[in-house]
Amino acid sequence: MKLYGYFRSSAAFRVRIALNLKQLSYENAFIHLRRGDQRQSEYLAVNPQGLVPALETDGHLLIQSLPIIEYLDEVYPEPPLVPSDPAGRARVRALAAIVACDIHPINNLRVLRYLLRPLGHEQAAVESWYNHWIETGFAGLERLLAADKATGRFCHGDIPGLADIALVPQVVNAERYNLEMSPYPTIRRIHEACMELDAFAAAHPLRQPDYEE
Amino acid sequence: MKLYGYFRSSAAFRVRIALNLKQLSYENAFIHLRRGDQRQSEYLAVNPQGLVPALETDGHLLIQSLPIIEYLDEVYPEPPLVPSDPAGRARVRALAAIVACDIHPINNLRVLRYLLRPLGHEQAAVESWYNHWIETGFAGLERLLAADKATGRFCHGDIPGLADIALVPQVVNAERYNLEMSPYPTIRRIHEACMELDAFAAAHPLRQPDYEE
Repeated sequence: MKLYGYFRSSAAFRVRIALNLKQLSYENAFIHLRRGDQRQSEYLAVNPQGLVPALETDGHLLIQSLPIIEYLDEVYPEPPLVPSDPAGRARVRALAAIVACDIHPINNLRVLRYLLRPLGHEQAAVESWYNHWIETGFAGLERLLAADKATGRFCHGDIPGLADIALVPQVVNAERYNLEMSPYPTIRRIHEACMELDAFAAAHPLRQPDYEE
Repeated sequence: MKLYGYFRSSAAFRVRIALNLKQLSYENAFIHLRRGDQRQSEYLAVNPQGLVPALETDGHLLIQSLPIIEYLDEVYPEPPLVPSDPAGRARVRALAAIVACDIHPINNLRVLRYLLRPLGHEQAAVESWYNHWIETGFAGLERLLAADKATGRFCHGDIPGLADIALVPQVVNAERYNLEMSPYPTIRRIHEACMELDAFAAAHPLRQPDYEE
């Protein structure tokens, strides 16, 4: 298995957590996003979208983090990353989608760069933008998690899964931009529970071989 | 079954297509996004995220369009909306995610409004933004579809499914903003094949009871 990723990519971070939870070993191919490796023809042949992650496995080239994780969960079912009942699966996938659709893509590097140029905004406006979309998403997520008995030690019960995998990299991003986390006690509690697990901690950007300041 | 939606919402449009393909009848609850119904406490009690769609079914309140559609596909398996093999499912989910994560959320109403105010951009800059993210996403999608033998009359083989459900509302948006579609012949061809089917055509914004100019 070969993971095309980048230490700072939240989407690659998700896949690293899933691979760790499944105890699957993998080889790294580092795609340096700030240097633009993702736009080189070599990587576009792997993923024409020019985004990370991509996962080479079982003769397939898979892209998009959540579909990759669902694939891993289907092919390597233990431990399960989504519940066995359809309503539970829908809940977990929805919690993950709040991060993966409604927060993260709006704050992606390419979007922030578009705000800087051509739109010409200063770094301060870009940071307000960044925090605005995390706050908006976390406000909904916090209410959904706090109000539902299905929430346990983790987002859904007492076993970490797809929703936690999406949540943790987003909290790490929020911490990096010094977002005030006190309005989101449930998110913070779950994040801390996850980070006590090796599978999550070892996937952190700071612990990747391609990490740089 | 009750669908909380809005004629113009692409995410609600996806769920309408899925319900039609499954031949499931449903009641409509219209949430007028331009008027701000989604921020009223009545709707926030349904979906704390304040976004459409939401689907009330079998005693559950489901949110997020793709998780809703996967739920419908699991509980009402005919006709299937994702392939039966894990790699096929990963492909279809990834194609859907390109639209649902990497195009649509960046062009969502709330994001466009943020560009207008507080960021203070003119309508022309907002339209360039809108088309930029569709073009970027469609370029990757076109290459993925055109290069893969798994693509058939529809995104994956000759049966419409999850990827087509995500694609069609995005093409409808592109047409509305007069995006030049000639660089995307495969996308255009698949879109036309979908729109020949009642399930897709009847879900179009223009054909919803809450449609307005």
